[in-house]
Amino acid sequence: MAKRVAVVGAGVSGLASIKCCLEEGLQPTCFERSSDLGGLWRFTENVEEGRASLYKSVVSNSSKEMSCYSDFPFPEDYPNFIPNDLLLEYLKLYAKQFNLLKCIQFKTKVCSVTKCPDFDVTGQWEVVTLREGKQSSAIFDAVMVCTGFLTDFHLPLSSFPGINTFKGQYFHSREYKHPDIFKDKRVLVVGMGNSGTDIAVEASHLAKKVFLSTTGGAWVISRVFDSGYPWDMVFMTRFQNAFRNFLPTPIVSWLIAKKMNSWFNHANYGLEPEDKIHLREPVINDELPGRIITGKVLIKPKIKEVKENSVIFNNSPKEEPIDVIVFATGYTFAFPFLDESVVKVEDDQASLYKYIFPAHLQKPTLAVIGLIKPLGSILPTGETQARWVVQVLKGVTALPPPHVMIKEVNERKKNKHNGYGLHYCRALQADYIPYVDELLTSINAKPNLLSMLLTDPRLVLTIIFGPCSPYQFRLAGTGKWEGARKAIMTQWDRAFKVTKTRTVQESPFLSENLLKLFSFLVLLVAVFLIFL
Amino acid sequence: MAKRVAVVGAGVSGLASIKCCLEEGLQPTCFERSSDLGGLWRFTENVEEGRASLYKSVVSNSSKEMSCYSDFPFPEDYPNFIPNDLLLEYLKLYAKQFNLLKCIQFKTKVCSVTKCPDFDVTGQWEVVTLREGKQSSAIFDAVMVCTGFLTDFHLPLSSFPGINTFKGQYFHSREYKHPDIFKDKRVLVVGMGNSGTDIAVEASHLAKKVFLSTTGGAWVISRVFDSGYPWDMVFMTRFQNAFRNFLPTPIVSWLIAKKMNSWFNHANYGLEPEDKIHLREPVINDELPGRIITGKVLIKPKIKEVKENSVIFNNSPKEEPIDVIVFATGYTFAFPFLDESVVKVEDDQASLYKYIFPAHLQKPTLAVIGLIKPLGSILPTGETQARWVVQVLKGVTALPPPHVMIKEVNERKKNKHNGYGLHYCRALQADYIPYVDELLTSINAKPNLLSMLLTDPRLVLTIIFGPCSPYQFRLAGTGKWEGARKAIMTQWDRAFKVTKTRTVQESPFLSENLLKLFSFLVLLVAVFLIFL
Repeated sequence: MAKRVAVVGAGVSGLASIKCCLEEGLQPTCFERSSDLGGLWRFTENVEEGRASLYKSVVSNSSKEMSCYSDFPFPEDYPNFIPNDLLLEYLKLYAKQFNLLKCIQFKTKVCSVTKCPDFDVTGQWEVVTLREGKQSSAIFDAVMVCTGFLTDFHLPLSSFPGINTFKGQYFHSREYKHPDIFKDKRVLVVGMGNSGTDIAVEASHLAKKVFLSTTGGAWVISRVFDSGYPWDMVFMTRFQNAFRNFLPTPIVSWLIAKKMNSWFNHANYGLEPEDKIHLREPVINDELPGRIITGKVLIKPKIKEVKENSVIFNNSPKEEPIDVIVFATGYTFAFPFLDESVVKVEDDQASLYKYIFPAHLQKPTLAVIGLIKPLGSILPTGETQARWVVQVLKGVTALPPPHVMIKEVNERKKNKHNGYGLHYCRALQADYIPYVDELLTSINAKPNLLSMLLTDPRLVLTIIFGPCSPYQFRLAGTGKWEGARKAIMTQWDRAFKVTKTRTVQESPFLSENLLKLFSFLVLLVAVFLIFL
Repeated sequence: MAKRVAVVGAGVSGLASIKCCLEEGLQPTCFERSSDLGGLWRFTENVEEGRASLYKSVVSNSSKEMSCYSDFPFPEDYPNFIPNDLLLEYLKLYAKQFNLLKCIQFKTKVCSVTKCPDFDVTGQWEVVTLREGKQSSAIFDAVMVCTGFLTDFHLPLSSFPGINTFKGQYFHSREYKHPDIFKDKRVLVVGMGNSGTDIAVEASHLAKKVFLSTTGGAWVISRVFDSGYPWDMVFMTRFQNAFRNFLPTPIVSWLIAKKMNSWFNHANYGLEPEDKIHLREPVINDELPGRIITGKVLIKPKIKEVKENSVIFNNSPKEEPIDVIVFATGYTFAFPFLDESVVKVEDDQASLYKYIFPAHLQKPTLAVIGLIKPLGSILPTGETQARWVVQVLKGVTALPPPHVMIKEVNERKKNKHNGYGLHYCRALQADYIPYVDELLTSINAKPNLLSMLLTDPRLVLTIIFGPCSPYQFRLAGTGKWEGARKAIMTQWDRAFKVTKTRTVQESPFLSENLLKLFSFLVLLVAVFLIFL
């Protein structure tokens, strides 16, 4: 009989997990707490408990060619960076294409996932769910937890002395939906992650004044990167990644700083990261420097004290009147349905081998998908995790012995570094390309570039020097997709198609003026000869 | 007795004209049609006839160090690019500082300015005004016309076949005030000047869909230029300008194209200018490429046909449903109070010597200030024009004989080009630095850089290689300002002061890692030696 797999959550990782199970002959049942699929990416006007909450204007930070499911490119008419409503539409297309809906039970909350009494032998789990007030229980051969890392909001009010006395309005960024609430207000946004920066920029179009308070600062990248190419299509190439990882961390950090400052000098804009070695994830925002240089957003350091109607910052005794404070202080994650003996979350870390399997379980039948923050896109990363997990569940791929896994996990927790390449400050952050490659290698799905060099050199060069798009993960072995090569070779065409919506006749730019040019050059040579 | 000067309009040029008159002992009377000063820069919720109309979000396109009155820097806490309300505040500070208000008669419309019967001898003008329904007349020794070039809107409806059948809403961009009207609408903005681009970008935050139709395309510059410096502080240096003017136009155009495309490739974004030799003024916008790459603004070519509820563009037979059309088709100018025999406007051109004096008048007692579009800021340009005009009116500076002036005017009308430097496609556009230098030379106010090189080399280097800020026009001769040198030497400090609102301790970035770096270098050398 096919193994029964419980999938918790129908977001980007949950959908990929269902698909992988179906493809490999497992029998998935997905429990989704809310009434529809999409997880994080389904915008609702009201905040729902236990689900990440979007604001209306959210646009993806990874470009469409870099953040699709590896065998399912975005529709051609989608823009390069995708607004949340289109992303949800894409997820629905995916679910339809691969017939995933039949496996999803909506409005069904997972209450508990516990080991069966004979777990040591069977590896089975009892999953208790609640639907419309009715509890049910079922036994599964495996569980894939796809609840993400943005479920619980983080609001450390005690770090803001005086916040209790504040007479204005304050809330966590997850409550934020539309900018109208900021009209003519003096707004303070605390925290400079992607949400905080987006909210500050958006507020600045309506508010009287907007302050953005950041302790650590951040490198800010525009989606519109070198010559207007999507940032990740330029930054995320195998060649560049290998080059970065070959260099000592200080040099790579210096190069990154130089690159980041070429758009705008972060020090001059008050945004310089405090720690340039242990990198935070960069902020992706196209408008922030423009808002700062026009005085619409003011960058401030850490809050020193909150007063009744104002805030004092660390660098100045001046009280700044404030009406609204938005705490964009981030999220954390938890698994309320799992016992701590299965997965324990401490310091924003869970003891998961390859960010996936609890290292100490007797049977590898519970996996966490999408609990990772690669600099690349989470979508193909979670998908690759699911592909790997399914092979492990099927017994095709074996995990190393527990002590090896536990050692790997403990090493990662220390966040020590070999001194080369980029060094992230957070434990959930992984180096996208090597991480995915490792998983693919383990399921024999990584193409052998060396042998391909003989048969298809153009493709290999595109793979090495071009964007590391997810189609590369479908070129060979388990899960091979016939369309992969073509998708890789046409990725730039699709990227440009949607923006190149007006063309001009190439004017006889040079030909017409060739004579003039030529005379000028002759003149130059003449001058040169005279002075020689 | 002091000469009496009528100043028409109390906008940026009018205020500078009043001040120049006062300083040089003339007796100015300024007639301002509306109820307050500021001209263009005074935002009102309703459009007023005969006055340019702003939308709420307008921010200056020139930076504060490049666009102030030459002896009156913007307050230190002003941002680098100035929202319209602050610019108006600045104008009021200027009026207060130099006591200009006493010379302005508000709510007074100039009905006619006609030559007195004895004009050939006296050069006097009869100025008829209307105030609260009451007409008055007065004789003036001279008239300074400061009504600007944005008074009459240009709406060539006949160029848009089918516009009469359109059932949606359409209006000229001057009617536009707030983006709310675009909420959930399908919007088409026609014309890609600064207004059109601003409006399209702003609409894209609320609208369902936004199209921006442009026939000619444009180079788009961000205020946030190289390394985040204000674009004009980098672009507008004497050295760079001289370098550009030394090169043949095709080479300079090629360099400009290269530079413009380094932010984003204009062809890939559908914005490539059709004519890369005869330049239009660039569009200053920080957000446009970011809005295009996220699919919020779609660039379209020329309109082919307007239908009842849709528009067809030149490159595709597809009908695009449209709810609102905004015609950002620009402005023209006129002098309804002047007879055509004094100033005739044809093809957006007036026959004015140095863009100022009607070339054929027997007496040079009527001057037009601010009817010019330098790539630099209009504000110091108008001010310098006023300084020059006042010297002409006083008889200190003489104009050349009429035939010389007429020849110069006719040459300019042809818009022929010597083949070097930038070549603008419009007649009102002048090369900022040479133009202002010429006026200053003529009133002995241009500093002699060569002799200054001996006494103050640091200043000279800053003048040549630094931003050509207006303080340079106050270093010597008539109208010298004691604060000019200091203002020049501290211009970058002021520019950074307002954005550098958070600083971090310089981390021991290198020192800590010096050892690692050193070992890496040793390693590299070793590898090199081995392979040698």
